[in-house]
Amino acid sequence: MSEIIQIINARLVEGDSLISRSLWVDSVAGIFVYSPDPALVVSTIDLQGRILSPGFIDLQINGAYGFDFSEDASEDAGGISYQDRYSETRRKLIKTGTTSFLPTMTSQHAERYHQNLPFLGPSKSRNPFEGTESLGAHCEGPFFAHNRMGVHLPEAIQSSGPSSEPELVIKTYGASNLFNETISPPTNPQEQLEIPGTIPSHVRMITMAPERPGALTTITQLSNKGIVMSIGHMAATYPEAAAGIKAGAKMITHLYNQMNPHHHREPGPLGIISGATDIKPDNETKILQGPEEGDSISHRPARPYFGIIADGHHVHPASIRLAHLTHPEGLVLVTDALMLLGGEDGTVDWLTRRLTKKGIKVMLEGTDIIAGSCVTIPQCINNFRKWTGGSIPGVLQAVTSRPASILGMENVKGSLRDGADADFVVISEEDVAGQSVSELVIDQVWKFGVKVFDRGLE
Amino acid sequence: MSEIIQIINARLVEGDSLISRSLWVDSVAGIFVYSPDPALVVSTIDLQGRILSPGFIDLQINGAYGFDFSEDASEDAGGISYQDRYSETRRKLIKTGTTSFLPTMTSQHAERYHQNLPFLGPSKSRNPFEGTESLGAHCEGPFFAHNRMGVHLPEAIQSSGPSSEPELVIKTYGASNLFNETISPPTNPQEQLEIPGTIPSHVRMITMAPERPGALTTITQLSNKGIVMSIGHMAATYPEAAAGIKAGAKMITHLYNQMNPHHHREPGPLGIISGATDIKPDNETKILQGPEEGDSISHRPARPYFGIIADGHHVHPASIRLAHLTHPEGLVLVTDALMLLGGEDGTVDWLTRRLTKKGIKVMLEGTDIIAGSCVTIPQCINNFRKWTGGSIPGVLQAVTSRPASILGMENVKGSLRDGADADFVVISEEDVAGQSVSELVIDQVWKFGVKVFDRGLE
Repeated sequence: MSEIIQIINARLVEGDSLISRSLWVDSVAGIFVYSPDPALVVSTIDLQGRILSPGFIDLQINGAYGFDFSEDASEDAGGISYQDRYSETRRKLIKTGTTSFLPTMTSQHAERYHQNLPFLGPSKSRNPFEGTESLGAHCEGPFFAHNRMGVHLPEAIQSSGPSSEPELVIKTYGASNLFNETISPPTNPQEQLEIPGTIPSHVRMITMAPERPGALTTITQLSNKGIVMSIGHMAATYPEAAAGIKAGAKMITHLYNQMNPHHHREPGPLGIISGATDIKPDNETKILQGPEEGDSISHRPARPYFGIIADGHHVHPASIRLAHLTHPEGLVLVTDALMLLGGEDGTVDWLTRRLTKKGIKVMLEGTDIIAGSCVTIPQCINNFRKWTGGSIPGVLQAVTSRPASILGMENVKGSLRDGADADFVVISEEDVAGQSVSELVIDQVWKFGVKVFDRGLE
Repeated sequence: MSEIIQIINARLVEGDSLISRSLWVDSVAGIFVYSPDPALVVSTIDLQGRILSPGFIDLQINGAYGFDFSEDASEDAGGISYQDRYSETRRKLIKTGTTSFLPTMTSQHAERYHQNLPFLGPSKSRNPFEGTESLGAHCEGPFFAHNRMGVHLPEAIQSSGPSSEPELVIKTYGASNLFNETISPPTNPQEQLEIPGTIPSHVRMITMAPERPGALTTITQLSNKGIVMSIGHMAATYPEAAAGIKAGAKMITHLYNQMNPHHHREPGPLGIISGATDIKPDNETKILQGPEEGDSISHRPARPYFGIIADGHHVHPASIRLAHLTHPEGLVLVTDALMLLGGEDGTVDWLTRRLTKKGIKVMLEGTDIIAGSCVTIPQCINNFRKWTGGSIPGVLQAVTSRPASILGMENVKGSLRDGADADFVVISEEDVAGQSVSELVIDQVWKFGVKVFDRGLE
């Protein structure tokens, strides 16, 4: 049986525009409906001109509120199980407007993946009160360049060795965490690994360095099986990064951070957001992906999506503008948040290491090595708007429709379309003294057609 | 008495489009006329669908065909005076389609400026057969960062000292080379220098590093007097480069070359093409120039023009795409050509040093220090089209209307508008085997309404 809620006087985020029209939510099925039976409408909500956006999707978040997705899932902490700590974190996080995420594991040994990933896979439940929904885990590492590991565990990265052959990668994460069918290793090791199964299991996204031996084969094989491959924590040159995109990677993990800087004659990974080609400076032009050979570069250059950490610390605002202006349709805001999100300034234990938080900065204790952030998606949105001057709907695409497209879920998530999951946020604009750009504030969060957060009621 | 030539069946470059319509040229006055007296039409030329573009303007060219604008103007070479060598070079250069230029002097001692600049000032003559017209000299140096001098004479840069105070700068170039009225130095040295005169004399553009003491004052004072100030050969950080733009500089000299590389937390001069602000990463945003304080950054960010050397050696094509996509309206193609333009491979004397040319590369002999280029504007156009996939009229703006705007001459040069100087080129598109983008080939060059080059007649 359906129960329809009509929402009136909302400004809906549709593409680049804010459109004033009504919207109907089926709060039992948890989806948007466009032509409901009027007899089923049980209530009407007047949003008084506020903005209604699809719920936010965070493709890269390592933890929050004192919990880290990579911590030992076999141990209780303070008498509370990993499962319960994870659930509690999700229920807190959804209040920031992040209705879906990819819980992200930093570089770990194989055992930790085998232990934790089954908890972090896609949430099966459509219970709106379970907090932020997992769309699958993001494995960030351990197949990284050894000089671009950031604060990831060096032992985990070093023990992954120099290679990223498919067999090793699958063994590290565990085949059943990757695919819904088990695989049998080839009897002849020279033989190309045949991976059965087409539906990803617990893992939805993997970040790896494309220049390691075997990485391109792995990127091709896993992306063909539906896992989103992203290149990052890499020492890749421009052609090596471009080869990763050609092989099937869709994205660059936190552009600028943990990769070669741009040089005008060796543009590095930044260069490929302008179009990944194997242009040689001495005039030979050939497009790697997209257009047929012979097409002009302007037709369909291969330009990857890229994550940006807009916390005001990882990347300078002018560099964010540069990337945004170069490839506006590619930019995705991610928090890269750690357990210190929502915490106080100070130093805390974090896995086998210690982190110091000071304002927006999180560093490895006693060093100036930047760790992940402690910001929320709304903070990233507000920073990004202030720094780029983008329109509200334009900015919101970077946390809604665009991450959904990367995951191939554009009909279900990050959208207000008929039949999509009714995950959405109600946003007020508030003026801030001395600031020309308004701040967006999350008033309400709805999950599967049910209101789960209301600022006025907290 | 007017003599009107009617041009039919041309595709005219107008903004971003190619427009098929007729055009009339007054070959006596040397200008375009839009509604001529039909009785005055003396001939009609059918261009059979070829492209008609305004003549090219090169803002940075150091010499060509064995001649360097900075060589000693008091000495004959091979029995030929500097004036005659200069004239000969201009008559050769115009065949490449460059109907106007800023002959560019590299860093020299004061005496050399005093000696040479009077030759290099704006051509007074409207005689179409004198070759490429000077719109005034470009003084590239000597007020540079001492670690960003490239192949410029170290002695000249070092002798300029660490400062760029207005008095020193004016004395170095010579006041009469800068202004049409002489100036009297202030009797009290603490007093702000008052520069009389509003019409630039021989010097039209100056490149200097903005971070040197006194440079910002000089940039403001000289740009207020009509001299185009460009920042370059600098060690400037992002805020120092932004301050140069705020002070009045309109342009960045050969973006990427001889400046700090981009870093994501210290974006350097590349960062300012995305909008020059004094944003601090900890969230304070203030626009330096353009919008009133309190305006959103999107309204009128201060974005400078920038030169690009598209020879395939100075800058990687992906870096050119990055700059082009970030600020398409800012990009100007310059050759930065040296006397080796038009020369054979090998090593030659160049001022007090020696240069080696090998294909498109010109280096200081025995080093890998890149010197200026040996390409023509048409080569730069063809490279740029191939690498960015831009439309033909879009690309041509980078060598016509845009450099004219920088010089404040958009009604006179780089335009086909009524009353503008009838400097134009007729261009054929030629297919090249194995290449998807056609090559543009210069068929004819017209100066002041008179055909001065015809490929079919050479």
